[in-house]
Amino acid sequence: MDYYKNYAVKYGRPVADAVADRYGDADSLVRSGNPIIDHMLMHRSIRRFTSDPVAEGDVRTAIAAAQSAATSSNLQSWSVIKVSDPSHKQEVNRLCGNQGQIDDAPLMLVWLADQSRNYAIGEAYDTQLEAFDYLESTMLGMVDTCIAAQNAALAFEALGYGTCFIGAVRNNAEALAALLQLPARCVPVIGLAVGRPHPRHDSDIKPRLSQDIVVHDEVYRVAEGQEITAYDRVMTEFQGKQGMAPHGWSGAVAVRLGTRSALHGRDRYMEFLRVAYMGTR
Amino acid sequence: MDYYKNYAVKYGRPVADAVADRYGDADSLVRSGNPIIDHMLMHRSIRRFTSDPVAEGDVRTAIAAAQSAATSSNLQSWSVIKVSDPSHKQEVNRLCGNQGQIDDAPLMLVWLADQSRNYAIGEAYDTQLEAFDYLESTMLGMVDTCIAAQNAALAFEALGYGTCFIGAVRNNAEALAALLQLPARCVPVIGLAVGRPHPRHDSDIKPRLSQDIVVHDEVYRVAEGQEITAYDRVMTEFQGKQGMAPHGWSGAVAVRLGTRSALHGRDRYMEFLRVAYMGTR
Repeated sequence: MDYYKNYAVKYGRPVADAVADRYGDADSLVRSGNPIIDHMLMHRSIRRFTSDPVAEGDVRTAIAAAQSAATSSNLQSWSVIKVSDPSHKQEVNRLCGNQGQIDDAPLMLVWLADQSRNYAIGEAYDTQLEAFDYLESTMLGMVDTCIAAQNAALAFEALGYGTCFIGAVRNNAEALAALLQLPARCVPVIGLAVGRPHPRHDSDIKPRLSQDIVVHDEVYRVAEGQEITAYDRVMTEFQGKQGMAPHGWSGAVAVRLGTRSALHGRDRYMEFLRVAYMGTR
Repeated sequence: MDYYKNYAVKYGRPVADAVADRYGDADSLVRSGNPIIDHMLMHRSIRRFTSDPVAEGDVRTAIAAAQSAATSSNLQSWSVIKVSDPSHKQEVNRLCGNQGQIDDAPLMLVWLADQSRNYAIGEAYDTQLEAFDYLESTMLGMVDTCIAAQNAALAFEALGYGTCFIGAVRNNAEALAALLQLPARCVPVIGLAVGRPHPRHDSDIKPRLSQDIVVHDEVYRVAEGQEITAYDRVMTEFQGKQGMAPHGWSGAVAVRLGTRSALHGRDRYMEFLRVAYMGTR
């Protein structure tokens, strides 16, 4: 089953038309026809999987892609944990809000901003270890981690798997760190559920905000309300086609970010970072 | 000039051998032959560029790839600023430590974790806006931003450009935010220098740590000192081939993270975040 070809088969038209779906309209300025770019344009998150396992060789390939991404000063400040043992995965999922896609996926990767390895090196060299006093060393690790994880996601998709990023690894970060036996200065940043896409549950390309809103020329320009309203209309049309409630976009944003309870424990994440880094600034 | 084909031409052997360079050794468990994965395996950062501009259509294509990446709850919590006006770019670069690759690149993108747009939506809907009180909303935006930026980098490379990520946008984040006229709740995370690779300054694939060190099975395993030493040997050999001082790796890590001054102002980044988010936790 080929994730890449499926889109063309399903829609009966060229892959390049994925761009039109991405913006809810044809965008003649976006050129495609490049297989690497088409691959990215066609991304959609997959939340239902078959029971097929993820081959160990494919994991190694995806990790090689992840390690090939840029890394700040070649510090390689990340690690990743493969969680595939069913009962262990269930325990992990319990801390991530018992999500269906984690339950369904044969493999969950937990991506870690990891300065514990570099800290041990600093100790061995008897340095002052000053940078570790600042949460910037975590930030640097987070950037590296996310860049690497995205390469892995693209590699899995290229190998015919589907993926879903899991922000909920930050919901109960302290308990998850304990369960995964993380050392100090090593923190969960993002999860990735991986598996073969279930053929009866493929999803469609989701439209995004216009480039006029997210791209700024030399300095920042605040978007007008009517630009957001235009995207609400695009999303409403998309939701209607999907048989979802046609609520648009901005209302969902307001709900998602309106209340502390919608953070599901992530309001404690910064405090967790401070503890994981042992009282740092 | 084709970034992709250059590697094969330069080395006179199949692209798939990039894997051997990545680990400083043949790794028979990593399979390749897939153009998308090969593209990622062959990445190297480019720091010298020709004077050719980056075509506007290519920027739009790269941004479409960036927007096609996963985004938490479809919140799309990022923006990007194109900096290409020479005198403006020079001012930006002054705040990033006057780096040669920024000076040389015709385009610098500044990627922003941006909750200002979503905050305005929350205000319009008259919600409690509680999630914005927690730095987790920045974290979420940072993850989205980095995932998107990596797609853009891969797209630029697919179009024949070279790229270099710039962590130094966090060196003087407050001054940079003022220069770029960023609203509250919108912060610089990472920069990306983009241009046509200078043909006389192509770089080689840099070896990375063994997968045995960065990948963990079910729970975290602390690496042994001798595993790090083995990578030091790989890096020493690489540096020798490059005509660089053969210092290995761990010594450079110790220097980079040993002192506060090596952070070049990034020790103030967390405090900047707190101010940009107006006194949040």
